[in-house]
Amino acid sequence: MKLRSVNEIELPAAFDAHVHLRDGEMSQLVTPTIRRGGVNQVYVMPNLVPPITTIQQCLEYRDRLKAIDPSVDYLMSLYLHESITPEVIREAKKAGITGVKSYPAGVTTNSSSGVVDYATFYPVFAEMEKQNMVLNLHGEVPSTPTHAPSSTTTKDDVPTPAITILNAEPAFLPTFKALHERFPNLRIILEHCSTAAALAAVRACGPTVAGTITAHHLSLIIDDWAGDPFCFCKPVAKTPEDRDALLKAVVSSQGRFFLGTDSAPHDSRKKRGEDKIAAGVFTQPYAVGLVLDALEKGVERGVLAEGDVSQEVLEGFLGGWGRGFYGAEETRGERIVLKRGGEDIVDVLRKDGVSVDVVPFRRGEQTWSVSWK
Amino acid sequence: MKLRSVNEIELPAAFDAHVHLRDGEMSQLVTPTIRRGGVNQVYVMPNLVPPITTIQQCLEYRDRLKAIDPSVDYLMSLYLHESITPEVIREAKKAGITGVKSYPAGVTTNSSSGVVDYATFYPVFAEMEKQNMVLNLHGEVPSTPTHAPSSTTTKDDVPTPAITILNAEPAFLPTFKALHERFPNLRIILEHCSTAAALAAVRACGPTVAGTITAHHLSLIIDDWAGDPFCFCKPVAKTPEDRDALLKAVVSSQGRFFLGTDSAPHDSRKKRGEDKIAAGVFTQPYAVGLVLDALEKGVERGVLAEGDVSQEVLEGFLGGWGRGFYGAEETRGERIVLKRGGEDIVDVLRKDGVSVDVVPFRRGEQTWSVSWK
Repeated sequence: MKLRSVNEIELPAAFDAHVHLRDGEMSQLVTPTIRRGGVNQVYVMPNLVPPITTIQQCLEYRDRLKAIDPSVDYLMSLYLHESITPEVIREAKKAGITGVKSYPAGVTTNSSSGVVDYATFYPVFAEMEKQNMVLNLHGEVPSTPTHAPSSTTTKDDVPTPAITILNAEPAFLPTFKALHERFPNLRIILEHCSTAAALAAVRACGPTVAGTITAHHLSLIIDDWAGDPFCFCKPVAKTPEDRDALLKAVVSSQGRFFLGTDSAPHDSRKKRGEDKIAAGVFTQPYAVGLVLDALEKGVERGVLAEGDVSQEVLEGFLGGWGRGFYGAEETRGERIVLKRGGEDIVDVLRKDGVSVDVVPFRRGEQTWSVSWK
Repeated sequence: MKLRSVNEIELPAAFDAHVHLRDGEMSQLVTPTIRRGGVNQVYVMPNLVPPITTIQQCLEYRDRLKAIDPSVDYLMSLYLHESITPEVIREAKKAGITGVKSYPAGVTTNSSSGVVDYATFYPVFAEMEKQNMVLNLHGEVPSTPTHAPSSTTTKDDVPTPAITILNAEPAFLPTFKALHERFPNLRIILEHCSTAAALAAVRACGPTVAGTITAHHLSLIIDDWAGDPFCFCKPVAKTPEDRDALLKAVVSSQGRFFLGTDSAPHDSRKKRGEDKIAAGVFTQPYAVGLVLDALEKGVERGVLAEGDVSQEVLEGFLGGWGRGFYGAEETRGERIVLKRGGEDIVDVLRKDGVSVDVVPFRRGEQTWSVSWK
C-alpha cells in the first residue's frame, strides 16, 4: 500500500490494548468515543480512585462500562497492590479478568498505591504465569527526589546518574528483564514504550513479552510537550530518534508491538488553569486515524519507506497482533472504513449533562474518519 | 561562613546581569521589585516588541525605566539585528550603551527577529571588540522542526542527532567557541548557562569570556518544569547533574560566572489558561534570597561543602564579579542585609492600576528578606 496516495482503507475493527475510561461522569463522556476511534475491543486500566484491587470492583466496573456502550468488548485488569494474592489471581482468572497492571508508586496519574518492591509480588507473578494472565508494566522508575543527591556512587565508585523523567524508562529495563528471566512463561507487556532502549529490551525477550505503543508517542517529541499541556503525558515523549524508532517498530513489529493508546482523559481544568498540569494525552475518539497520520508523517520524513505501511502491518498493529497476544478473538466480525481527512478533531469533547470536558490531542486539525460496515 | 547556621548576612547591593523589565504596564509592575530582590544595578535585555534596535529606542527605554525607579542603575543593550552596523556600534558606545544581545531566531520569547547567520555580523563584532562592548549570547540553536528527519548524515556518514530543547545549548557551543577564537578580545557572555557542557566551554575560553547563571537553574531540573508552567523557561532546566554543575560553578567561579537572573515576567494568563505556555521564570523580587536558598540546598545535598559558600563567593557571584566584567562600578556604596526566612514569596504580584499580574517562582514559600542599609 502507498499510504500517501490512498484515500480509503478498510480494516478489521481495532483493538486498543491500553485505555483509561475513568469512572462516573468522565466515563460517560469518553466511553462512547471508543467506537468513533475505530475500536471495538479495549483493555481497560484499573487506576481509578480508589484503584481496582478486588474482583468485585472489577466486575462492577465492567458492568458500568457495558451500560454506557454495550457494543464494545472490555478486557479488564486489576491494580497490582498488596491485597492481590495468588488466591485473588486464581479467582480473577475464573471471573474472566485478563491481567494485572503494575504501576511503580508515584510515577503517573493515580499511581500512589503502586509497587515499591517487585520481589514482594513474586508469588503473585508465579500464580499469574500458571493461570496464563497478562502482567502490564508501567515501565518507569520514580524520579530521584529533587533535593536528593544528583548521583550516588556504586561499590565500584562509578557514579550512577540521578533518575529524571528522561531516563526513568531506561532505568526500569533491568527490572523488566529480570522479571522476564524469573518468569519466562509469564506474558508481560511493557506499556507505552517511549524510547529506543525500551524497544530493544522487548525485542531481546522471548515471545511471551510484547510492547504497546501509543498514537501520540508516534508523533511527539520533547519540544512538543514543553509548554503544551495537551501533549504532556507520562512517560514523556522523548527525542526525535526515539520517536522514529517507535515508527520503525510498528512496521517491523511482527507482533512484538501493537497499539495501546494510553488515551488518558483529564478535565480541561486540570490541563489549563491548574498549577500542576495533569499528565495524559486524550486520543480515544481518533485512535486509528492518529496512528495513520503518524505513520504517514514517518513516510514523509523518510523514516519509513512507502511500502513499509502495508495492509498486513495496519491490520496487525491496530488489531490482530494485540488480540493474538491477549488471546482475544474479534468475534463480532466488524470492519471499519477510514477516509482521509474525513474527520475534524473537535476543540473540546463535551456532552449534555456532563460537567467535565476534555481537549483531544491535535484539536482543531483533521484526521481520517471512521465508518462502520 | 557556614551558610546553614547563619541567619543574617550583610553584602554589597547586588548586580543582576540579565533582567527582562518589559515595557508599559508590565514594566510598571516589575521594575519596582528590583531593589526588593537586593539588586541596585541591572543589565537590561532588549527583546521588547518591537525589539530595541536603535540608540534612540534604547535611551528612551532607559528613561522610562528611570522614571519608574531612579534608584537603580540600568545598563542597556541593543538587540542584534540586520539594522545594527559598525556605525551603530560606534554611536551606541558614545551614547553609553553597554552591549548587544544576540538571540538565535525563534528560540525564546520575542526572538523572532533574531540571528540566522552569525557570519553576517562579523563586521559588527569586530567593531564591538574595538569599542570594548559586551556581546551577550543566548546560547541555543533552534530545534529541528518536529516533522523534519530526526537525523542528518554528515560527510563522514556519521548521523547527527536532531536538535531538541535538551541539546540546543550544547549544539550552540561550537559557534560560541568559534566567535571567541575569531574575536579573542571581544567580551562575550554566554547567558543563562544550563548545562555542564556550557560551563566547560566558558572555562575553556580566555578571560574575555564569562557566563551568567540564573537563580532558578540553580534549583530546577527537568522534572520540575514538566507539568509546572511557572518553572518552564528557555533554556529549559536539564538534569540533576547539570544543576549540580551550576552550583559548583558558582563557588569555584573565580569571576568566570556570575548572577544574571533572566527573570522573565509573563502575565499569569499566558502561564495558565493559554494552550501554549510562555517560557520564563519570574525571580526579580527575590533574586538574592533565591540564590542563597539554592546554594543552601546544594550544601544539604552534599554537592557543596559547608565552607564553599564563603563571603567572598557571595560578594563576587552576586555583584563584584559581574560588575568587574562589565566595568560597572557600584558607586552608590549601598549594602543589604539578608535575614533567613524573613520574606514570604507572594502568590501573585499585583499593583493597583496595572491590569497584568505575575506569579513568582516558588510562590507561597519563604526566602531571605532584604533590607537596605
